[in-house]
Amino acid sequence: MAKKSVCLLSGGLDSSVTLAIAKSEGYEIYALTFIYGQTHSKEVESSKKVAMYFGVEEHKIVNLDLSGIVKSALTSDLEIPTGRTTEEIVGCEEIPPTYVPGRNIIFLSLALAYAETIDADSIFIGSNAIDFSGYPDCRPEFFEKFRELIEVGTKRGVEGKPIEIKTPIINLTKAEIIKRGLSLGVPFELTWSCYLGKEKACGKCDSCVLRLKGFREVGYEDPIEYEDSI
Amino acid sequence: MAKKSVCLLSGGLDSSVTLAIAKSEGYEIYALTFIYGQTHSKEVESSKKVAMYFGVEEHKIVNLDLSGIVKSALTSDLEIPTGRTTEEIVGCEEIPPTYVPGRNIIFLSLALAYAETIDADSIFIGSNAIDFSGYPDCRPEFFEKFRELIEVGTKRGVEGKPIEIKTPIINLTKAEIIKRGLSLGVPFELTWSCYLGKEKACGKCDSCVLRLKGFREVGYEDPIEYEDSI
Repeated sequence: MAKKSVCLLSGGLDSSVTLAIAKSEGYEIYALTFIYGQTHSKEVESSKKVAMYFGVEEHKIVNLDLSGIVKSALTSDLEIPTGRTTEEIVGCEEIPPTYVPGRNIIFLSLALAYAETIDADSIFIGSNAIDFSGYPDCRPEFFEKFRELIEVGTKRGVEGKPIEIKTPIINLTKAEIIKRGLSLGVPFELTWSCYLGKEKACGKCDSCVLRLKGFREVGYEDPIEYEDSI
Repeated sequence: MAKKSVCLLSGGLDSSVTLAIAKSEGYEIYALTFIYGQTHSKEVESSKKVAMYFGVEEHKIVNLDLSGIVKSALTSDLEIPTGRTTEEIVGCEEIPPTYVPGRNIIFLSLALAYAETIDADSIFIGSNAIDFSGYPDCRPEFFEKFRELIEVGTKRGVEGKPIEIKTPIINLTKAEIIKRGLSLGVPFELTWSCYLGKEKACGKCDSCVLRLKGFREVGYEDPIEYEDSI
């Protein structure tokens, strides 16, 4: 019987490549997507298409309305920064306003509950410490601590079979992630990375800037459409 | 300016006493209650009454539908055990079927996001390691690990001002919790502990059995109504 894995899937490039990696390792995939008061649902639509493309076993979309308790540029009316260069984004030591307090702790907690319920062995999460070094909950030491939490705080952990947290792209650059995705046949045209929710990707927010730079470095054209002005 | 604290409030006896303790320590209270697919909403109604009684600053009730991803006797149609003696409940080394995978990790994660958003100093949670030793996520070592996770995984933690997790009743017996509550004027008649959602408390589920034993030990009559048959 194939091993089961819960894959956090936002519909973006990173999580889609991560899902493809899990699939290539022979896991039966249980995809998990959250609707959490982000200002658009473009990425949710993308997550559905990517999950279907990879023929996942199950795709759960959980409505998690955090707008009442969490404030960030992604969940409220704070301004999303645009027009920053990659150097400004990656080199920035400040935590960006798109930081959502507790986001990865919340997502991993729910993934953990789901994994324990379906008796999965692992959780895949597409966090990246290179491009998003500003987020404390994207760093390897955060995931290491979460692993320790699982050992003491869950039935499976106490029984000596803790659910694993897999972060296969955590130390890759965006270009390396894209290369990995190309080799695994990831349908990049179905993914969505832009923080804004317009018809086409803006090309200017931090997420678009990093994505475009990655494709440029690989020498492959990003198949999604961007606004004309860029 | 008063320090702010997020208090997890289920509407049960333990969380109500915990909230009273936070209040007595001078905190401005931000109560947080989850609706998570439990089979009844009696406890949610209780949480509203308790929050109002203590004049909290804010009471957020978050609808968290876990029924699609989590299975336990509290969130699905697994049978809730009844008729066990206190010795059977407390002495039982097995994890009971009312264990909800990842519950306290999920609740603390959301409380953490809320606390970071409103700039609170601490989170109060009414977990108890004596009566509920069967739940891995009610033990002191679980909370200790969660404190470490906050240090590495949140903005506040990275900045050296981690949000504290307070578990003031973790090592108290139910009788001691009730005594503490009596001294703080907790309106026990407004609280609800029964796992079933009937008109009156059943008196037979693990939660009722422990509550009734606590009141007997204190020599004080539990002011809530129980079914006639007990």
